[in-house]
Amino acid sequence: MGSSDLDSDVELSRSAAGVGVPGVPVDFVADLAEYVAIPSVSRTAEPATMRAAAELLVRHLDFASGRVEPTAGHPVVRGEWLGAPGRPTVLVYGHYDVQPEGDHERWNSPPFELTADVVGTEPVLRGRGVTDDKGPVLLVLAMARDLLAREGALPLNVKFLIEGEEEIGSPDLPEYVAAHAAELAADLVISADGAMWRPDSMSLPIGSKGLLGFDIEVRGPERDLHSGRYGGIVANPAHVLASLIASLHAADGSIPVPGFYDGIPPLSGGRRAEIAAVDFDERAFLGSSGAGEPFGEPGYSTLERLWERPTLEVNGIRTGATATVIPAVANAHLTCRLVPGQDPQHVFDSILTHLQAQPVSGTQVRVVAEPGAVPAYRIPVDHPAIRAGIAALESLTPPGDGPGAPVLLDVVAGTLPCTTMFESLLGIKTLLFSFSTSDENLHGPDEFLRVSRVGAGVRAWEQLWRLLADGPHQLTPTGAP
Amino acid sequence: MGSSDLDSDVELSRSAAGVGVPGVPVDFVADLAEYVAIPSVSRTAEPATMRAAAELLVRHLDFASGRVEPTAGHPVVRGEWLGAPGRPTVLVYGHYDVQPEGDHERWNSPPFELTADVVGTEPVLRGRGVTDDKGPVLLVLAMARDLLAREGALPLNVKFLIEGEEEIGSPDLPEYVAAHAAELAADLVISADGAMWRPDSMSLPIGSKGLLGFDIEVRGPERDLHSGRYGGIVANPAHVLASLIASLHAADGSIPVPGFYDGIPPLSGGRRAEIAAVDFDERAFLGSSGAGEPFGEPGYSTLERLWERPTLEVNGIRTGATATVIPAVANAHLTCRLVPGQDPQHVFDSILTHLQAQPVSGTQVRVVAEPGAVPAYRIPVDHPAIRAGIAALESLTPPGDGPGAPVLLDVVAGTLPCTTMFESLLGIKTLLFSFSTSDENLHGPDEFLRVSRVGAGVRAWEQLWRLLADGPHQLTPTGAP
Repeated sequence: MGSSDLDSDVELSRSAAGVGVPGVPVDFVADLAEYVAIPSVSRTAEPATMRAAAELLVRHLDFASGRVEPTAGHPVVRGEWLGAPGRPTVLVYGHYDVQPEGDHERWNSPPFELTADVVGTEPVLRGRGVTDDKGPVLLVLAMARDLLAREGALPLNVKFLIEGEEEIGSPDLPEYVAAHAAELAADLVISADGAMWRPDSMSLPIGSKGLLGFDIEVRGPERDLHSGRYGGIVANPAHVLASLIASLHAADGSIPVPGFYDGIPPLSGGRRAEIAAVDFDERAFLGSSGAGEPFGEPGYSTLERLWERPTLEVNGIRTGATATVIPAVANAHLTCRLVPGQDPQHVFDSILTHLQAQPVSGTQVRVVAEPGAVPAYRIPVDHPAIRAGIAALESLTPPGDGPGAPVLLDVVAGTLPCTTMFESLLGIKTLLFSFSTSDENLHGPDEFLRVSRVGAGVRAWEQLWRLLADGPHQLTPTGAP
Repeated sequence: MGSSDLDSDVELSRSAAGVGVPGVPVDFVADLAEYVAIPSVSRTAEPATMRAAAELLVRHLDFASGRVEPTAGHPVVRGEWLGAPGRPTVLVYGHYDVQPEGDHERWNSPPFELTADVVGTEPVLRGRGVTDDKGPVLLVLAMARDLLAREGALPLNVKFLIEGEEEIGSPDLPEYVAAHAAELAADLVISADGAMWRPDSMSLPIGSKGLLGFDIEVRGPERDLHSGRYGGIVANPAHVLASLIASLHAADGSIPVPGFYDGIPPLSGGRRAEIAAVDFDERAFLGSSGAGEPFGEPGYSTLERLWERPTLEVNGIRTGATATVIPAVANAHLTCRLVPGQDPQHVFDSILTHLQAQPVSGTQVRVVAEPGAVPAYRIPVDHPAIRAGIAALESLTPPGDGPGAPVLLDVVAGTLPCTTMFESLLGIKTLLFSFSTSDENLHGPDEFLRVSRVGAGVRAWEQLWRLLADGPHQLTPTGAP
């Protein structure tokens, strides 16, 4: 089946139901179509466009006094339903902004027009933002309204904070959260942003890697020089930069920077066994990237490297051209992904010290850290939120199918700065509970969302709230609201 | 004195004479102004513009049956005066095309309007092509016509070949020369293209370095990958490229590629002494480049490195960007300048073998040589052309000033492919006898030509022809015409 216009929401919901997925809310697809049609590209959109997306959410938050509040940048959407005194309070986080859609010709349907299609054998919805993060947020609001309609109350107190700048690095969110910390107080953040690791199993992240970006600039002569007239008699900044970058990795893939690995606890036998038990097809995973061979730090498996070991990658190098010159300047951008135990400042200082010890042949080398470095984030495996999350995901297995399918505890190998930000400003952990999947072309053309995950998300979020409110995995209320 | 319009040729010639420079031909400045006004930029000009420049030269070659002849690209200007039977024959080479003028705002006067000015204390003429190569060619034609007018004959037979594609790499010249080898036969090529090494002394190049360009491309994944999701588990092409480039130099500046230096004879004590005797202010030379520190192969002085040792320089690196990706591909362009004894193919093979022995972590590496590699060019110091050239330059010292100022025997650290081409196709050496100076902003804005060098050039070329025709430095005629 090829692309087809979305001419019948009802039919699409039936088609979802037809592949065995219990009920996507009847209005959900139509609501999502209206939402996706607003091109809320935070990098470029006019304020009125961003506001239109925020106000659509406000309509869906009528049960929670939804409203738009200003920040120094694009506004946030706030709301709260506090009708469960004595019960815990959760803060639901997400974002209404989207990545630029890029070249329309690389899409199989207009990026801002919700379109039904099939990927593999699965019905999907396609459009910019459908899985990052419009669909995963909207399904929470649909679930909450439905639950309220059915039962007249939610199992716990819920606050909402949906921002409009996630795709540009949330530059104004920390200031907003700090200024509204008392109003946002809760026992747990639940993020509708993030992504399941892969489509064939349910997974729950127990952390995300930290991030440290830095630039290296090597300056030599005042201008590009003729490579004949000056070749071999002055230092070439491009050579010096190449040597500096080369010095950051040993041939075996390890990082020979003294201090880089400082503070990282050894990988426990238990964690190694957990990771080894994951049903993981390395060839298929790497094959999907077009990178044939695994390569990395020796002594660790690919999954161990991905989830438990820090990385240092050069993202780009720019210097000179194809003309026969000695370039005046050479630049590189690099990023490290950090793991628990690593302090971003210590890592940067270690790299700086290492680079300063390399020969630079009389050139001037500047190493500048990008602002906004964040340490790795972890939530303990025995945190009530993780235990409730696992139980909620296990409950998705239809009754009669035996015990719930095992839930994979993964680590987001990327970086989610909001987790660390909420921890430092509100003092609470964040549970990543998105029903996006990381293969759904987030940020690329033909972004899509599996319809099956919408149904699963609606049921899992309701179950999660019930489990956090009452029972063995109950959150201890701190009297937040 | 600032810029001034060129409102009086005569006055300018007088001003040149006023600083002690004997006669610039009276019509020379007006003729050069007309020539510079034709924007014969070989890279972009219309055929009619190129032809206009060629036909201007034909007018100045009326004494030599000057004519325009087609090639596969821009035409060449040919001519010959063969009125000295039994005497040697020289082939005068130069070019009528110029480099693009670039941004007009970076010029102190319109690039295609000849303008008189002063640089330091010296009168100069400014305009695109004035020193590369319109002035140095025009002064030979002016000298020849003047000599014929005075004496009714030239001292030897002269052929002319002025091309229109030098600044784009002379793509069509070899085919033309091969097809017209019999007509172009001579005992020596004298090139009016090239440049004296520096303004404060007369110099004569005894060679130029060869050139070998190559590209390195490292391919990893099929597309740029997210540096979180794939960091640390697949090879990063940018790291591999940096390591490959770094492997091409030792920290001390030498080139640790087995075979790279093969065939280069040891630098003789005699040549070392000659070079050591050169009055050379290293600080001033490097200072003019904006590169503060000398750096290069250990065991050699800066001048020895520049004139006698091969180089390997990376000219540019392009990969990725500042986004947090693992780039799919990384590219670099590099060039070697070669010295006598080095075979370009052997040098390339040595580099290839060396690179193939480096770890590349499962990436695909391609190393591709640019077409058109040329070996170094040398003309023996005891060749009659060099002996005559030295004598002609020494004769410029005004009588009564004692013995002639010493002439510096330098090496062009750049590459002049025509030298090797004439040697292989016509079997003769080329004497580089240009009165341009390498600091006159060749290829840049505010290109200029010292008026003093015009006068010197006119006198030196006449003297050179006389010396080659007769006396101890006479060329042995091979019966060329």
